[in-house]
Amino acid sequence: MTDPADMDAFLSEPRDLYRGRALAVIKPSTAAEVARVLALCNTQGVGVVPQGGNTGLVGGQTPDASGRQIVLSLQKLDRIRDVDPASDAMTLEAGVTLARAQEAAEAADRYFPLSLASEGSCTIGGNLATNAGGVHVLAYGAARDLALGLEVALADGRLLSTLGKLRKDNTGYNLTQLFIGSEGTLGVITAATLKLFPRPRSRAVAFLGLDSPDDALALLNFVKERAGPGLQAFEIMSRLGLELVLRHIPGARDPLAAPAPWYALLEIAGFTEGEAERVADLALAEALEAELVADATLAHSLDQAAALWRLRESMSEAQKREGGSIKHDISVPIERIPAFITEAGRRIAARFPQARPVPFGHMGDGNLHYNVSQPAGADKAAFLARWDEMNALVHGLVDAFEGSISAEHGIGRLKRELLAETKNPVALEVMRALKKTLDPNGVLNPGKLL
Amino acid sequence: MTDPADMDAFLSEPRDLYRGRALAVIKPSTAAEVARVLALCNTQGVGVVPQGGNTGLVGGQTPDASGRQIVLSLQKLDRIRDVDPASDAMTLEAGVTLARAQEAAEAADRYFPLSLASEGSCTIGGNLATNAGGVHVLAYGAARDLALGLEVALADGRLLSTLGKLRKDNTGYNLTQLFIGSEGTLGVITAATLKLFPRPRSRAVAFLGLDSPDDALALLNFVKERAGPGLQAFEIMSRLGLELVLRHIPGARDPLAAPAPWYALLEIAGFTEGEAERVADLALAEALEAELVADATLAHSLDQAAALWRLRESMSEAQKREGGSIKHDISVPIERIPAFITEAGRRIAARFPQARPVPFGHMGDGNLHYNVSQPAGADKAAFLARWDEMNALVHGLVDAFEGSISAEHGIGRLKRELLAETKNPVALEVMRALKKTLDPNGVLNPGKLL
Repeated sequence: MTDPADMDAFLSEPRDLYRGRALAVIKPSTAAEVARVLALCNTQGVGVVPQGGNTGLVGGQTPDASGRQIVLSLQKLDRIRDVDPASDAMTLEAGVTLARAQEAAEAADRYFPLSLASEGSCTIGGNLATNAGGVHVLAYGAARDLALGLEVALADGRLLSTLGKLRKDNTGYNLTQLFIGSEGTLGVITAATLKLFPRPRSRAVAFLGLDSPDDALALLNFVKERAGPGLQAFEIMSRLGLELVLRHIPGARDPLAAPAPWYALLEIAGFTEGEAERVADLALAEALEAELVADATLAHSLDQAAALWRLRESMSEAQKREGGSIKHDISVPIERIPAFITEAGRRIAARFPQARPVPFGHMGDGNLHYNVSQPAGADKAAFLARWDEMNALVHGLVDAFEGSISAEHGIGRLKRELLAETKNPVALEVMRALKKTLDPNGVLNPGKLL
Repeated sequence: MTDPADMDAFLSEPRDLYRGRALAVIKPSTAAEVARVLALCNTQGVGVVPQGGNTGLVGGQTPDASGRQIVLSLQKLDRIRDVDPASDAMTLEAGVTLARAQEAAEAADRYFPLSLASEGSCTIGGNLATNAGGVHVLAYGAARDLALGLEVALADGRLLSTLGKLRKDNTGYNLTQLFIGSEGTLGVITAATLKLFPRPRSRAVAFLGLDSPDDALALLNFVKERAGPGLQAFEIMSRLGLELVLRHIPGARDPLAAPAPWYALLEIAGFTEGEAERVADLALAEALEAELVADATLAHSLDQAAALWRLRESMSEAQKREGGSIKHDISVPIERIPAFITEAGRRIAARFPQARPVPFGHMGDGNLHYNVSQPAGADKAAFLARWDEMNALVHGLVDAFEGSISAEHGIGRLKRELLAETKNPVALEVMRALKKTLDPNGVLNPGKLL
């Protein structure tokens, strides 16, 4: 496609932070075609921007403003090549959406646990290129941990395959993991073999009122010890976060009788009838008795469970409707989450009086979406104009806490300069050397990540 | 050390397949010292052979015969730097033995699941350099899956650190996974941050008599569905394997009343009181009713459980005492294990009449130690003289089954030529390019892996 109107949807991204131009949008149908496009661009020195479902949050999938790059859409590589439940593996092409991947697993009576807000449109190739996280990392790991092998088109047009259903294979360097999370800068993923898991037969979802992040940490460890790998998700949000959801999201209801300063949402899976409920009942009763929990409710139907999850999943939308929100996707060692919340709140209060931190997210993984909403009733533009200053404050603290400035969203264009400033210098040198080895002409997603 | 008598223990390996010479054995005490040794060797062009507990099975840790390499022993890097149960992470130096790592976790009321026969002497650095597997890969993954970060001395003496307790960190290429399993050919691991897990509160170990590998596969899926991630191990062995153990291992007793053609040993963990036994009881009762299992016994004490595990863990020793045994460490897609056993047996019977295949191992991971014992009473040396011919037969079949010629033991010197013949050519090219980038002078474990 070269017509501007046809290309338009491929040249901007959901939050409209980035908008670019392109020579063309190319939509190959096979891995061999992808490889040929790369070979041609490599010899001609044309930058290639791979794109899946175009749901990325850091601008990794958007071309620059030069108009001299091409967008390589993987959407037509959408075949499910193989689903093998007895080997617990399926092989899918890069353009298969995450939702279709989940359905393919379910149709074979298996479970594919990767789950995130954009699952209806994001694609497996993009999930792997960015090492997507989501709500079940605690039990199953991120996208990285769910891949057994890849098919990758290299910059010069060679096609590398590590596809295969093997759970163990110690024949050399792990090339699979090198490409996962490299954001299309080392090669273009065209297919992947993914792990399948037994389907949970029971699920318990609980929403708990807590006095503090310290209690959330204690509760997390308490539940881990009792549920083991059955603990699928452990999310937290503050009272302010819940209030924003109750204010802005139609149908949202406070599940607890009295307000609490903090909340945890947890999900436990079981593999025999009633097991999840039994474990959840036991853990909650003991947690209440140990006074780790102020109040709690356990969903007694799938609808109730979905309603509890909706409170958590509506956080971004509710913040958006409340006005300006400055975002951070950070992680720290799990044990340091409470201290981080305290210290970040203190520093923000000093520098941004009336700004309202609304931290929430995957506490079980040490990952907070540490977002800060504008002062109530204040000017949105004036608040957002201080985005970089707020970022600098929060990311500086992340560094002091030995954390990461991008827990699950990646680097893309948004954090490229920040990465160069904060990453271990030797690690950066090694990354640059690897980039040069695999993409000597610099045609793969130029200007992203590095 | 330069004295031949002092160096001797570092120049050969457990099975005495390889024996080398060395300029010196160097035992640094810190990562900085390791880095300085590498920098010096790099400028002088001296090959460096890293060595941990010297328990590797493929000759990766042994210097060549030239006498111009040095052995770099990591044994003195044996500090436990940090154990943080609330973050479920611990940081250990490379020379800490696996058994000490397990104990450090246990002392903090956590579980470190990596477990293998040589755990008393093998080291964390070696475990990671070779991506060690063992008996709990099914539930927790291999060494690769247990690492959060590494400290690595690079060929030119730079020290790279990805150490840290973060469960999620999407800031660039995954350098950690690149070094794991690279067998000391890309850098020398000096420390690692490892994941900790909740300690199981109950364990059930069962030993089951089965009619066939097909029934073992059906049983594996049956138990997976009922135990989910609680299934910690699923091992198989043949009747002949059990008979060799009963014949050669003092104190070994057949746990079932009547012989069965095949056996499975399975372990289920639970995180509440009695949970493992409840799940195991239920699964076994249903499996007996579904006629997947001919007979079964469930351990009712830790001693009984240990006795069942000893049957499985004595397999190598029993084979050794029975005479010559030609070994293979292979994996295929789990679903194809039964067909592989049938076809391999057929081909061996045709070419090696009276040779006795004794396949056993980690069926849950698709990983068999497909060993073949000499014909009863025949000449051991004459049988072992056909090692390469047997390997070619078995590995050819592995290739036809889309399997791996090294599931968990690695490549080292033993399988270097085989790797060059069997690996995907593009993957080999990429591996060589990475090697050249990170070790341009070729001083890191020369002649191993590539």
